[in-house]
Amino acid sequence: MPRKIITGFSNPTVKAVRSLRDKKHRRREGRFLVEGLRLLTDARESGRLPELLLMAQGRDDHPLLADLEAAVDAAGGEVIELPLDILSKVTGKDNPQAVAGVFAEWDTALSRIDRNAAPIWLVAQAMRDPGNLGTMLRTADAVGAGGLILLDDCVDPFSVEAVRASMGGIFTVALAQARWDEFLGWLRQGEGQLVAASLRDAQPYRGAPYAAPCFVMVGNESQGLPEPYEMACDLRVTMPMKGRADSLNAAVAAAVLAYEVLAAVDA
Amino acid sequence: MPRKIITGFSNPTVKAVRSLRDKKHRRREGRFLVEGLRLLTDARESGRLPELLLMAQGRDDHPLLADLEAAVDAAGGEVIELPLDILSKVTGKDNPQAVAGVFAEWDTALSRIDRNAAPIWLVAQAMRDPGNLGTMLRTADAVGAGGLILLDDCVDPFSVEAVRASMGGIFTVALAQARWDEFLGWLRQGEGQLVAASLRDAQPYRGAPYAAPCFVMVGNESQGLPEPYEMACDLRVTMPMKGRADSLNAAVAAAVLAYEVLAAVDA
Repeated sequence: MPRKIITGFSNPTVKAVRSLRDKKHRRREGRFLVEGLRLLTDARESGRLPELLLMAQGRDDHPLLADLEAAVDAAGGEVIELPLDILSKVTGKDNPQAVAGVFAEWDTALSRIDRNAAPIWLVAQAMRDPGNLGTMLRTADAVGAGGLILLDDCVDPFSVEAVRASMGGIFTVALAQARWDEFLGWLRQGEGQLVAASLRDAQPYRGAPYAAPCFVMVGNESQGLPEPYEMACDLRVTMPMKGRADSLNAAVAAAVLAYEVLAAVDA
Repeated sequence: MPRKIITGFSNPTVKAVRSLRDKKHRRREGRFLVEGLRLLTDARESGRLPELLLMAQGRDDHPLLADLEAAVDAAGGEVIELPLDILSKVTGKDNPQAVAGVFAEWDTALSRIDRNAAPIWLVAQAMRDPGNLGTMLRTADAVGAGGLILLDDCVDPFSVEAVRASMGGIFTVALAQARWDEFLGWLRQGEGQLVAASLRDAQPYRGAPYAAPCFVMVGNESQGLPEPYEMACDLRVTMPMKGRADSLNAAVAAAVLAYEVLAAVDA
């Protein structure tokens, strides 16, 4: 199929896509940017297709790219070709990928979560680092978690950095965003064990009585969880800290704990 | 004690310190930059003092800062005061800390490692992300690892980003850098079990026969470990992957595995 070709940096589509690197514009547009054939293929295989597919001129042929193009065409999406240097400017990456896509964000209301869809859920509170958030999405995928629930003011999960670090997890696990009060109210309307790593009145994390659906919660990178959040947990557990530090990286703590929960609830 | 005061951006000391944000200059100078009272206090408590301490004018008093100043004075180090906007320019951080220090890098020869000093060691091969590397230092501290051994071309552990992510681990755990052949030769001269997460001929990571000193190795973020490295391991283990992805973030994988090893060797 003949493609629309863009040749100038000042093209309005180029400008609009480029603006999606800013959270403000993502919010306004309800769209986000995804780079690279691998992530775009993860998306396609998870049933998500870009509204707009941007392909560099002179790219190498690849069967997965052909599949992607065909799927976007079939779904009525738009496909555009442009020079690699313009695409690179759009995505802002030093090591530009030959393909990128613009997706519509999806609804992340808590009410869409079916807690019984999986034995484990991850919960992040006020997480500020997009790499940590993306890593939690990746871990959620790996442990078979139903999804990631973001509490309070977290970094945008649709940022380029978070999407990249998720390694496709953004497409494969459910995502919900809520305030703490809303989350706790929702949680207590049904089954669900809320667990956090804590130093307050906690038991060893190994062999603790985890129960599905188990919600593994970690807090902000510098502040940790607010005390009332910890005290609202059904289970507080502690991991050995053999050195000088008293905490792990938040995404690491979530993973160590989630794998321990997995061993208990997946038996 | 009266302090030397710097007031201009073009001061040679300011320029020299600022240049330490570049790896090339760090290599040439054998020095690195550390920001913030918390990290500098971790350093002091671990027996490391900056050669040069930079303090913002108009900073708040803090007993830990007073301790740090006194220690640097006692050790014959230099202390300089400068306006916060210049200090912020030096460290390049949006949210500037009121204090920074310049440290001499230390020897990271493998021959300095005493393998029997700890039951666990972490090993990273060709790790490219400074956040991941710093997170591994933090995890190494938490699991009581003797240190982190960097194989092949890793990102600089003395970069500002790696030091920051280590949360003090750069000062508390030993660091060694080596090529693979050198490491393997050294390892086989004594006791030591080399373990990697792998999909090749691997057994479940839970309950595997870990033995101290256990060397937990992870590979490059995109490529993983080269096959010969995996095949040289004494133990290859696999973690459950319940989703679409077949791997975890490298620093996460190292931590999940290290905590499992800890449970086995720390009994």
